[in-house]
This record gives sequence, structure tokens and C-alpha cells, in this order.
Amino acid sequence: MSEIFKGIPRIHYEGPDSNNPLAFKYYNPTEILGDKTMEEHLRFSAAFWHTFNAAGADPFGDGTISRPWDKYVDPMDKAKSRMTGAFEFFEKLGVPFFCFHDRDIAPEGENLSQTNRNFDVIALYVKELMQTSHVKLLWGTANLFSHPRYVHGAATSSNADVFAYAAAQVKKAMEVTKELDGQNYVFWGGREGYETLLNTDMGLELDNLARFFHMAVDYAKKIGFTGQLLIEPKPKEPTKHQYDFDVASVLAFLRKYGLEKDFKVNIEANHATLAGHTFQHELHYARINGSLGSVDANQGDELLGWDTDQFPTNLYTTTLAMYEILKNGGLHKGGLNFDAKVRRASFTAENIFQAHIAGMDAFALGLKAAYKLLKNRALENVIEERYCSYTYGIGQKICEGRIGFSELEEYALANSVKNQSGCQEVLESILNRYIIQAQN
Amino acid sequence: MSEIFKGIPRIHYEGPDSNNPLAFKYYNPTEILGDKTMEEHLRFSAAFWHTFNAAGADPFGDGTISRPWDKYVDPMDKAKSRMTGAFEFFEKLGVPFFCFHDRDIAPEGENLSQTNRNFDVIALYVKELMQTSHVKLLWGTANLFSHPRYVHGAATSSNADVFAYAAAQVKKAMEVTKELDGQNYVFWGGREGYETLLNTDMGLELDNLARFFHMAVDYAKKIGFTGQLLIEPKPKEPTKHQYDFDVASVLAFLRKYGLEKDFKVNIEANHATLAGHTFQHELHYARINGSLGSVDANQGDELLGWDTDQFPTNLYTTTLAMYEILKNGGLHKGGLNFDAKVRRASFTAENIFQAHIAGMDAFALGLKAAYKLLKNRALENVIEERYCSYTYGIGQKICEGRIGFSELEEYALANSVKNQSGCQEVLESILNRYIIQAQN
Amino acid sequence: MSEIFKGIPRIHYEGPDSNNPLAFKYYNPTEILGDKTMEEHLRFSAAFWHTFNAAGADPFGDGTISRPWDKYVDPMDKAKSRMTGAFEFFEKLGVPFFCFHDRDIAPEGENLSQTNRNFDVIALYVKELMQTSHVKLLWGTANLFSHPRYVHGAATSSNADVFAYAAAQVKKAMEVTKELDGQNYVFWGGREGYETLLNTDMGLELDNLARFFHMAVDYAKKIGFTGQLLIEPKPKEPTKHQYDFDVASVLAFLRKYGLEKDFKVNIEANHATLAGHTFQHELHYARINGSLGSVDANQGDELLGWDTDQFPTNLYTTTLAMYEILKNGGLHKGGLNFDAKVRRASFTAENIFQAHIAGMDAFALGLKAAYKLLKNRALENVIEERYCSYTYGIGQKICEGRIGFSELEEYALANSVKNQSGCQEVLESILNRYIIQAQN
Amino acid sequence: MSEIFKGIPRIHYEGPDSNNPLAFKYYNPTEILGDKTMEEHLRFSAAFWHTFNAAGADPFGDGTISRPWDKYVDPMDKAKSRMTGAFEFFEKLGVPFFCFHDRDIAPEGENLSQTNRNFDVIALYVKELMQTSHVKLLWGTANLFSHPRYVHGAATSSNADVFAYAAAQVKKAMEVTKELDGQNYVFWGGREGYETLLNTDMGLELDNLARFFHMAVDYAKKIGFTGQLLIEPKPKEPTKHQYDFDVASVLAFLRKYGLEKDFKVNIEANHATLAGHTFQHELHYARINGSLGSVDANQGDELLGWDTDQFPTNLYTTTLAMYEILKNGGLHKGGLNFDAKVRRASFTAENIFQAHIAGMDAFALGLKAAYKLLKNRALENVIEERYCSYTYGIGQKICEGRIGFSELEEYALANSVKNQSGCQEVLESILNRYIIQAQN
Ligand SMILES: [Co+2]
Ligand SMILES: [Co+2]
Ligand SMILES: [Co+2]
Ligand SMILES: [Co+2]
Ligand SMILES: [Co+2]
Ligand SMILES: [Co+2]
Ligand SMILES: [Co+2]
Ligand SMILES: [Co+2]
Repeated sequence: MSEIFKGIPRIHYEGPDSNNPLAFKYYNPTEILGDKTMEEHLRFSAAFWHTFNAAGADPFGDGTISRPWDKYVDPMDKAKSRMTGAFEFFEKLGVPFFCFHDRDIAPEGENLSQTNRNFDVIALYVKELMQTSHVKLLWGTANLFSHPRYVHGAATSSNADVFAYAAAQVKKAMEVTKELDGQNYVFWGGREGYETLLNTDMGLELDNLARFFHMAVDYAKKIGFTGQLLIEPKPKEPTKHQYDFDVASVLAFLRKYGLEKDFKVNIEANHATLAGHTFQHELHYARINGSLGSVDANQGDELLGWDTDQFPTNLYTTTLAMYEILKNGGLHKGGLNFDAKVRRASFTAENIFQAHIAGMDAFALGLKAAYKLLKNRALENVIEERYCSYTYGIGQKICEGRIGFSELEEYALANSVKNQSGCQEVLESILNRYIIQAQN
Repeated sequence: MSEIFKGIPRIHYEGPDSNNPLAFKYYNPTEILGDKTMEEHLRFSAAFWHTFNAAGADPFGDGTISRPWDKYVDPMDKAKSRMTGAFEFFEKLGVPFFCFHDRDIAPEGENLSQTNRNFDVIALYVKELMQTSHVKLLWGTANLFSHPRYVHGAATSSNADVFAYAAAQVKKAMEVTKELDGQNYVFWGGREGYETLLNTDMGLELDNLARFFHMAVDYAKKIGFTGQLLIEPKPKEPTKHQYDFDVASVLAFLRKYGLEKDFKVNIEANHATLAGHTFQHELHYARINGSLGSVDANQGDELLGWDTDQFPTNLYTTTLAMYEILKNGGLHKGGLNFDAKVRRASFTAENIFQAHIAGMDAFALGLKAAYKLLKNRALENVIEERYCSYTYGIGQKICEGRIGFSELEEYALANSVKNQSGCQEVLESILNRYIIQAQN
Repeated sequence: MSEIFKGIPRIHYEGPDSNNPLAFKYYNPTEILGDKTMEEHLRFSAAFWHTFNAAGADPFGDGTISRPWDKYVDPMDKAKSRMTGAFEFFEKLGVPFFCFHDRDIAPEGENLSQTNRNFDVIALYVKELMQTSHVKLLWGTANLFSHPRYVHGAATSSNADVFAYAAAQVKKAMEVTKELDGQNYVFWGGREGYETLLNTDMGLELDNLARFFHMAVDYAKKIGFTGQLLIEPKPKEPTKHQYDFDVASVLAFLRKYGLEKDFKVNIEANHATLAGHTFQHELHYARINGSLGSVDANQGDELLGWDTDQFPTNLYTTTLAMYEILKNGGLHKGGLNFDAKVRRASFTAENIFQAHIAGMDAFALGLKAAYKLLKNRALENVIEERYCSYTYGIGQKICEGRIGFSELEEYALANSVKNQSGCQEVLESILNRYIIQAQN
Repeated sequence: MSEIFKGIPRIHYEGPDSNNPLAFKYYNPTEILGDKTMEEHLRFSAAFWHTFNAAGADPFGDGTISRPWDKYVDPMDKAKSRMTGAFEFFEKLGVPFFCFHDRDIAPEGENLSQTNRNFDVIALYVKELMQTSHVKLLWGTANLFSHPRYVHGAATSSNADVFAYAAAQVKKAMEVTKELDGQNYVFWGGREGYETLLNTDMGLELDNLARFFHMAVDYAKKIGFTGQLLIEPKPKEPTKHQYDFDVASVLAFLRKYGLEKDFKVNIEANHATLAGHTFQHELHYARINGSLGSVDANQGDELLGWDTDQFPTNLYTTTLAMYEILKNGGLHKGGLNFDAKVRRASFTAENIFQAHIAGMDAFALGLKAAYKLLKNRALENVIEERYCSYTYGIGQKICEGRIGFSELEEYALANSVKNQSGCQEVLESILNRYIIQAQN
């Protein structure tokens, strides 16, 4: 197989003083922090769709990007060449995982049978490529939003035939994910929501969504797929309102329908902010609910109201994300998947390498800062001290459930309240120091 | 008792052609729609805090409003005069309910005992006033956010003594609500959230919040309070992030901690929009989850990022809210509480009457439009037709749970998909016609 | 030429009680209000791009719409058939104007010469169609944002060759607009802005933008184009930040570069709200600056952060827009252009008629409500009274410039201040009554 | 005068490894970068209002903060003690400037005469304190928004008497600013805007605002005040819409009314983001328009829709702000004024020192990073290269105004376009490296 990204070498760690734009300055995969290497902590994954399918189009403009595989006319030839390029990219970048949608990697055929056959052919090809590669499949998923048939949703479509089609598509995508030893399977409900309540039966739609997920759980068991099932929240876009609005909405849903043991969440940074939360909030909230499954590592622009899916370079975000992940005991089966696309103006082949390097270096720095924060208990000690009143006396009784309103009233009548400062500015200053000193 | 709002008469319905600014043009309490009068459908309530306590201050300016009771120096005299004025207002306006916070109606004393005594004195006075008035208590609540002791939250404070104090305060407020025959008791978690995650143990805080609610349920049972318990979601403000972000967050929480049978929600329009939802969305979602308890009827400004608590005058909002309420079988124990304040520049006594009239007329029109929409099944027929594929064949099997991915795949392989238009523009046009014709 | 929209009749006014989905309920073109017919007041225009080019794609999904002209393979055949359909649509709908971008109506060729030739061919065809049609050209414009060459902007591109190309394209589009007797020429700076300041020389870019506009003014004079030149503000999307952010930004720019006499603004409702303003604000502000040129009549969703370009159905918006337009002495050379697209789920041919009917009826009601508001001086009298202190005494001296800080201090030391209520709630209630009674 | 902040020492620079919470880690006033010390580059100023007047109240809660001067009952005694404390604070912190509103430092009297006398007494006291202090007055201003008389605005009030009162107040505040040798005078139009267009004559209000500013310019000349006049933009809050929305709005206004030579802008970070811009955008835009006067150095929370006025700790923000300031040739007469308040939960005396230290250290790091960015021309070279096509050939002709549409068309017909990548991700990565290495 001839080289596709000619002139681009294997990316190596060269350290903070390197000026090589095609080298890592901070991500050193074999560096050890605690009981794991950086590579094991971070579990980076490339997203096939953005980096190999997207062409730099936006709602007001055509694609700006051309890739070597564009020369193929036959869609299957193009799909294979693209996958070959992807594996070359994975190897050169040194990313241990990748993710895909069914329709990214294999073209739609004339009907579902043929589409499935296309998918099988490419899946087999991926399997071959994986045999001589270190890259593994972090997760697979089905694209249930791009085709016009999903205009009203998939599992929440007003049309039962669409529900059936979506079921068939997920069945197949899950089989392929299993075949390729995927560690997770993701559901992003891109059109599971509504455009207007004037024509919507939300009750039926949510019941159907639950039916769909129950079927998915059953089918995973049936075929022995042991990967983690994940739901990816997003509040809106493309639809006006999406049911998996944020982690809390997903948990409310899962708990209502008895699905909370079967699913965790895949949290995307840009989706968090679109929902009015910080990325850290969503990670923290999922973590304390035992639901933090995996992460779509990107960033949005908080002054823009759509999903910009930028490569993550903000060190506050990466540090606080890694802080939550370390407190979660790591990512477990999950990973940090770059669900991010190069800017439309970053149209060269070098740019996709550089953008991943930028994101990987930013997360490496975030890991180092977060690791030290935890090791030094820089925030932990503050929090422990702040809540210490719950470890003895009246606080302990509250936590142990040994007390009610009447006893608490007695206590309140007899005692006065004295609060401690929250010291937010000092804590922000401490965070700055850990970031500034991260590379040391 | 001498008249406080001198020169302002009892407000009557005079019909659409009246030019009397102190008359209802559309709200005709005795007009019958279906099996209820307008008054029974709408169950309007005045909010003591905004209309009798607030003085027109904002973060950048002092109060603009002076009221007759401001002349009193002694806080208890002032509190009584204010309450006398409130009852005169309720009677003149003809609003069947009111709501209060404990600290609105009775001033804080030097310590909790004295504060409770103040509260008892005023509560007794309210009880007397209620004996010669038609006004009832829609709900009571405790203010757990204004006093500096609640700077870090109440049930979610980092300080166990504050938890205890909050418990004592809710205990008392619930007792008074019961004494005054309140039909509901509301929890708005104004500071149950965080300012920064850098100093926050969200897991402990949420566990404590659940402990607090369990104690409240137990105490309500203990004293035989049979009113509905309600949680009022709000995403933020005053705190950076509030745990009761929206209805979904509240349901996620209640379901986790086994509280979902004990609480419904009190939905405020302006809180819905701050959370990124429409008011109708929150009502609809609560309704299909059996959780629609009561409504704080106001409106925000979607271009402003804070809780403006304006009087509700938007006819789209009132129509769609009443549509959801009618589909809910009405408000049951709940009501439409004007959790709304006159604009800072609307500082006259007439303005508080006029603002309520504006809101009541807007909801009366909304009720009439919604009632006809439902009577004519203008949207119902569209929705029924749109989802009809779930009533037979493959759709019926899906809904009945008699089918899985394998059978659905077989079906999808053998059938093709054909969708119908969603016709949003037509439906918006129909809604316009019902609003335009509401007064007829 | 055979009929393209078969089965869809000429749309007529049938009045408020009609249930014909393909009839106007409120828009009666020949109805007279004051000195003009409704048609003359409203000057409706259809936008070629949304209704004839767009296929219902969004960033997450493919087109849902197929049209009769899709069957043609040759792009020029398709372009002609599409234009034939457009004129049939204009005639059936009874809309007096249309607007186009150069690249909507004629396909890009292999190079600029050929592209220009394509454009000429179609322009000639349009000219023929116009001879047997009542439809006129409200405005033409050049699409300087879709092609990859404009990735960094057009007049503000970092690449001088792109500036040149854009100049050539505008030159040609202006010539064609003149040839077709267009009443205005519009500049929407879709990528005249930046993605990141890290690589941007804003000073040079703004100077170049001014140079470009000066050249356009010169060229218009040179060829004798007497249409009004218009700039259409939009704050962002597709770019992170666009220079023509809002009307104020445009005026700051025009005044800096001595262009304020040569350009007015084309205000789009959805762009106003994306900039944090109401539609009425932008219209009002442009009006008092003598810059209100034309209107892109659509609406956004204030809970969504992107340009949804929905058909305008909100009666508050249409009423207040028509209020500003009537106060402007009408639209003059401008019009109400439906820069709006049917929802992706509204994919039938009927839907494009129905969506326009919905918008036209909503503006007809808005016109009627606004006309009566002004005729009755319902708001005018309030405003006159509110500011009356500037018509005599100290206020008059202020307005006449006959006074300074020293005299004003003397006055302030000697006089006390008494304010009147702003009565916002009453005014909102009055607005509701005018809307509710608009059809009468 | 006895020490007010007992136990808090003079704050010194101790370097990055210090763990002393009351020391600077990065701000070393005497460290030289280029031709200036850090102190001269940064020109820090403390804001009297937030740090000495504000008590930690918010719209939902009472003050949490008590200060030593609260013990005084007489308002003038309190004002003097507060000012004494302020100067002790300025000295201990080592901040070279401060700013005040007239009504912060001296209490309102029974009428304007008495209010002015109060102001004179305190101003004289400040003058005395300044004689033994190194602290200078960066700017003075008048509070034209807190008192109820300003409910409808000040210079844009609907009431001419209020205009007169505002004029008198600014006259006095400008005199005092001159007396105290203030280097600038600031206008923040807190209520110069509207609540609803339904009752607003924006044209008259803007004309009046211009009249007011012309009078201010005249009066400054008359008394020989040579400080820079500054307008501080803010888009909204407290009012629904403020005329000085952003820098562009201010420039549009100044240019219309011939005031552009007399005023520069005072840019506040949190106001920039509320207007939908980045802080850097506003600084850059003001800079290239020759209007960058001074800076209110704080930060907002982009997920919250109100002015949080937090102490600035984000290193991206401080670096990019200092980058613009260095490119502006420094702050000239302006400064970095901490228009920031401690969080409501940061209620101790130490917290106000720590919050300022956090902000000063963050700006010191930002200065060091920005200084190196410029010294190395890390971005400058990229930008120079990116726009080089405007330095020769067709680009040069464009810039020199020697070319029009016809010649450009000829050029475009004969040449093809080739763009370069924008490389945003690489630039973000470079910015990260400069921040990470800032302390070195
Ligand atoms: Co994602
Ligand atoms: Co995304
Ligand atoms: Co409420
Ligand atoms: Co509210
Ligand atoms: Co437009
Ligand atoms: Co638009
Ligand atoms: Co400021
Ligand atoms: Co501010």
C-alpha cells in the first residue's frame, strides 16, 4: 500500500523546547504518572468522521478540503482508500484508538441489504488493517440522522417504519462493533427530539426511545457484545430540542425506564456548554452518579450558539477534565475521542496532524496539572476541611439518617451559625499555578 | 381598617371594548368553558413577595417604589399593615389565591425563637383576615436564600449547622402553611447549587439535599399536612449552577433517591427559558411524567440572561401554557401564581393592579384559544394522524413490546420508508388564527 | 412551458373564515389602508435561494426536498427549469418582487469567463420571463461566501487575488441587477470577519472593506445604476465574528470611511436577535439614522444560537416591524423579502406556498394592527406626553443648545425631580388588544 | 490613624515558589520588560465601589460582608473611615491608582447642595491622604444610575429635570476629579437606554445624550480639565438595552455627533462578553480606531447572562489583553482598573487582598507571555506573511486606491486564486506554549 500522507513522518515526543510543528511538546506516551503511562491515562482516539469524511463545508459554504482518496470515483474504492489513509494517520500520530459511524466508513447502497453488504466489506478490510496495527476500536455507532428518512427522528420518529429501519441499522452496527472488538457502543440521538411541540407526542416518542434502548440491551446480550453502551447527550442542533439534553436528562430517562444499569454517558465538551453547563460539571455529575463512560474531547466557542467541535486546546478545560477523570479512577473502557474537526480554513494534510498534536499536548499538560493537584491534595484538603462539619456531631447524624426536622429545630434554636469563606479567587489562583507549572 | 389603595375600585370584567385601565377586558371569572368557570380553570394567585415586599431595587439601583406601609417604623407594624394592604389588593383584584415566603410576611427577629414568634403573630393575623376573605393560600414556602447564613446553600450548605437551621425553618413554614390550609408547599433551591466546582463536593451536597427532602416528607406526614409538595426548578441565579436546573434534573434526582412519588414540580416560565427550554416544553415534559404540580406565571426576556420575572403578556406563551394545562386535566391543587414584579419604572399603586390585569387578561385569552384548539382537535387530529403508524402492524408490535431488533431488521429489509411533511408553518398559522379569534 | 407546480392554484384572499390551506386569510392585496394598498405597503419579495435552491440539508443531514427540476442533469437546463418554476411560483403566490444571488440562478463554470457567460444566459432568460410577468427584482447580490476561494473572506480576504475576484463578481452582479431593473443591490458580508484574532489584521481588513465599497459606489455611478446600495448586518455565522455585526457597527464603519450617504441597511430579523437585539430595535435605530433600506422578513428561535431563517409568523414581531416601517414613511425602494426557508421537515411543494402564505398573513395582520396603533396614536400620545418636558422651559433650552453645565447646575440646585411611571405592562396590554383586534 | 486591616502586611513579590497567600508570585513591580517596569506597563487601579462599598448582596440575598467602618452611624464618619481603610489597602497592596464614583465616597445629603458639600468634605480628605501616599487617581465618575431619580436614565431621561440634575452631578464630579488630578473621567451609561421601545423616543434620547457629551467637553475645557474623557460600553443590565452597547455602537454615536476626537473608550472585559464579543475583540477594535483609552480588568462567566464582575484570573484573557495593550503602545493615561468584586462567599478582609493578588499575578503572567509573543514576533510574522499579497502587485494597487472594479475584473479573469491555510490550531498551540512558559 503506497503512502498517502507523504512527507509527514511518525510524530514523536520531542519535549517543550522543540520547534518542530510535527512533534509532541508535552505528550510523552511512555511517561509514567502514578501507576499508568500517559498513553494509558489518556486513551486518545481519532474520530473517523471529522478527519476522514468531512470536507470543510459549513451551512454557508462548500468544502475547502481535498484528500488523496477524492480521486476515486467508485464509492467502495474511495472508502477503502480513505480507510487506508486513516490507518496510516493513526499509526503516524500514535493514537491507540479510533471511532466510527457505520455510514462514515461504508457508503449507503441502493437498499438496506446492499448497504449492509458494503458495510461488511469495509468492516472486513478494517479487521485486516487492525491485524498489523496497534490501533483498536474505542467505539462504533450508527448514523441515524443524516439520511432524509430520519427527518423526524429515528427511534422517536413519528413513522414506525423508520423505527424499524433504525433498529436494523443499530443491530448491524453493533454486530460490526463486536466483530472489531469495540470497547463501547455509542448512541447519539441527533434527531431524537422535536422541531415544534405543535406536532409532537413527546410521551409516545420517549416511550419508544426506551423501547428501542431495551431492544438494544437485549440484542447486545443475545450476541454476547460486552462493550459498554453509552448515550451521548446534546441539547439541540440539529433539532430544536433533543431528548438527551444533558447528563441529568439522560439519567432521568434511564431511571424512569429501568435502564440505568445498562448505559453510561459519553460526554462531549461542546455539548455540555451548549446545554448551559461547563464540561467539568457534566463530567463531575456523571462521575458521582457512576455514569461516566467516555469523553468526546473537543471544545466549543461559548460566544457561538452551535457545535463548533474545535480541537481542545484550552488548558483550563483539559486540566479540570483530567481532574474529574482521575477522580473517576480513570476512563476504564472509555477514552478521549477527538470528536473535533479542523477549522474550515485549516485545509492542509499537515493541519489534521497539527490539530491532533495541539489537542494531545493540551490534554497531556492537563493530565500533568491534574495529577499534581490530586497528589498534593491541593483542592482535596480544601474540600475536606470545608465539609468537615458533616463528619461529627449534628452533621454526622444528618448523614447517617438518624435525625429529623424536630431534632434539627431543637439544635438550631440552641446554636448559632458561623460560615467560612469559599475562597474562590484563591482557588483560581492555585489552579493557575498548577497549570503554569504543569510541564515541570 | 382604613382603605390602603384609595381610589382604586374593585376590578370588574367590562369586556373587550372597555377603555377602563382598571377593568378586565378578557378575564371574566364566571364565564364557563366546558365544565369549569374561568376562575376555576385559571386559579390565579398573587405572590406576596414581589407585590408587597419588593421596592423596585435592582443590582444597580435603589428602590423606586413607596407604599403606604413604609411609614411604619416597627417591623411588626409594617408587616401587619402590608398584610392588610395585601388582602385589600386580593379582594379588589378578585384573585382567589396568594402565596408567601416565611420571611416576606414576618420580619426576622434576633434569633430563631423570636423569628418564629414574629411569624406566628403574622400567621395568626393572616388567618383572621382569611376568615372574612375569599382568598386562599395556594402555597407557602421558606426563604432559604436571602440571609447571609445561606451563602453556601441551605440543605446543600457545606456547614451542617446551616442544614439544621434550614430544617428548622422549613419545619416552621410547613406548620404555618398547614395552619393556613395551604394547598401546596414549595421548595425553590435558590442557593442549592455551587459557585465553583473547585471547592464543591457535589456528591455529598446532593445526598444531603435528598436527606432534607426525605425529612420534609416525613414531617409532612407526621403533622398531617396533605398539601402537594413541589420543587421549583431554576438553572442558575443567584448561584452559578443550581441543582434543580430544570424539570429533567429534578426528576433525575427524585428518581435516584426514591422521592418521585412525593414531589411534583412548580414550573416558572422565566426559569424554563433560562434553562434553554420553552415554557411549554417544561409543562409538557412534566405533564407526561405525571409531575405537573403548579405554575409560576410570568415571562422573561429571551435576550436577557437573568430572571426578569415580568408579568406574562405574551399570548403565544399563555395559549400554549393553557393548552398543556387543559391536557393535564387542569391545575388540580396547583394554580397560576404571578411570580412577577412590576418593572422598576412602574412604581405607582395603579401599576400593580394594571400589571395583574394585563397578566390575567393574557391568560384568559390564552385559555380561550387553547380551549378551542382542543375542542376542535385542531392539533390533536394532526398528531393522531402523524403517529398513526404505531396503532397497527409493525408500529403496534413495537409499542406492545412484542418485537426485537432481529424481527425489525427483517421488516426493514422488506419494506421501504415514506415520510409525511411535518407542516410546521401551517401549524403556526393555525395557532395564529386561534389566538386572533380567541376573544370571539 | 408546462406547469411545474401542478395542482396548486393561484392563491387568493378568502378572508379569516376560509379553511382553504392555499388561500390568504388576512393578506388582501387590494385592501386600502390610508393612501396605499396592502400590496404597496408590504412589498413582499420571495428569496430565490431558499425556495428554489435549498434542498433541506443541514449540518447533520442531507437534503429532504426534491423538486421537478432535479431531473435535469445539465446545470444550465436545471437552472432554466428552476427559474421557470420560480416565476410560476411568483405568479401563483402573487408576490410582487423577488431577490437572487448570482450563484443561485446560474451555475459556476470552469472559470470566471464561463461563469459570467452562464450568468448572462440566465439573466437574459429572467428578463424574458419578466416581460410577461408582474414580478420585479427587489434586489440582486453576489454570493461571496460559498466558494472555497472565499474561505478567508472576500473584500476582507488575506489574499489580494480574492479581493480582485470578489470585485469582479460584484461588478458583474451589479450589471445584471441594473439590467433587470433591480431596485436595490445588497452586500451581505458572510465571511467578512474572522475566525480567530490570532491570525487577523483587522485594521487592514476593514480598510480594504471600505476600499471595496468605495469602488462599488464608483462603479454604480459609472454604469448609471440608481438602485439603493444596502449592507445587511449579521453578527456571526458562518464566521466567528463578522464586521457588519449589527446596524450600529455598520454605521460606525460607514461614518469612518465617508460612506454613510451611499449605503442603507437591509435588516434581517434573525440577524438582529443573533446580535442580542430585537428586530424592532434594529429597525427603529436604522430609521432614526435615516438608514432603513429594506427588510429580510423572517424569524429566528431565540433559544437557538444559529440563523434558523424561519418564516415569520410571530404577530408581535410583524406588528412592531410594520409599526417602524409605517413611521419610516414606508419601505420606499425596499421590500419585505422572505429570506426564510421551509423547515427541513416541510418538504412538499405545497409547503413552500403555505409557508409564504403564513408569513404574508402574519405581516398583513401586523400591518393592520400597526396601522391602527398609529392612526389612534395609541403609543404616540403616550410618548409625546412622556417627553413633553423637552418642549418648554429647561428642556427646550437643552434641545436648542442654549445651555451648559453651569446653568443646569443652577437649575438643579433650585428644583426637585418628580418622575412619571413608565407603564410598560399597560402598554403591553394595549399592544395585545391591537393584535387581537387586527383582523376587524 | 489606627490600622484598619490588622494583621495584613504590605504585600511583596516572593516569586513562583512562595506559598504565602499574601504575596505576589508573579507580579514584580520593579521587573523590567523592554523600556518599562511591570508597574508602568500594568498601571493597576483598585475600584473603590466594589472593594469598599459593596457588601456582598445580590438580587436574592443580603450582604455577607462586614467591614470595620460599619460600626460608624454617621454617614460622614463612615465615609471617612472607609476612605482611610481604602488608602491603607492601596498602600499595603501596592497598587498605584484608584477610581471612584461620586456617590461611593460621599453620602447623598438632603438635597443637591448638601450632597455637594459632603462630596467636597470627602474630596478634601482624599486630597490630604494623597499627599502622604503614592496612590493617584486614575479616574473619577458620577453615579447616574443608583438613585430613583435616574429610573428612566440620566442624560437620556424622558424628564428634562433629570437631565439637568445629571448635568449638575457630572459638573461637580469632573471638578473633583480635576482637583484630585485624575488622569481620566469616565461615563458609564448605566441607564442610558430603554426598558421597552413601546414608550421610547430613541431619536430624542440619543440627541440628548450627544448634547450632554458636548456640554461635558465644553465644561472640561472651561475648567481646564485635561484628563481623557472615556465612555464605557455595556450592552444591557440594568436596562434592557443600553445605547453604549459595545465599542462599535459608541463609535457610531461619536462619529454621528462630531465627538470622536473628544472621547475614547474604557473597555470592561465582562461587558465585552455580554455584548457577544471577546475582550480581545473590543480592545483590538478600539485600538485600530485610535480609541483605546483604559480598561476595566475583570472577567465574566460566559455561561451566565449577567455582569458577574469577577476578578480576572484567566490567563488566556490576560495574555491577549496585554498583547493588545502592548500593540497600543501601552495604556497611556489609562490603567487596568479592577472593576471586580469578591464573590459573595469570599467575605473576609483577607479575601479582598487575595483577590487582587490573584488578578495582579494573572495580569503579570499575561504581560510576560504577551511581551515574549511580540518580542519573538510569534504571531506578527504569521500575520505579515498571511497578508503579504497586499504589499506588491494587485494588492498594493488596491491599498493605494489606484484601481477599480473594471481593472480588478480584468485581473481576476486572467489569474487564478490559491489560498493558504489559516492554521488556527497551530496558533492556539503556540499561545499555550507562551502561557506555559510565561513565568520563565
Ligand atoms: Co460527540
Ligand atoms: Co459536537
Ligand atoms: Co418562581
Ligand atoms: Co423567577
Ligand atoms: Co438575509
Ligand atoms: Co439569516
Ligand atoms: Co466597568
Ligand atoms: Co461590569
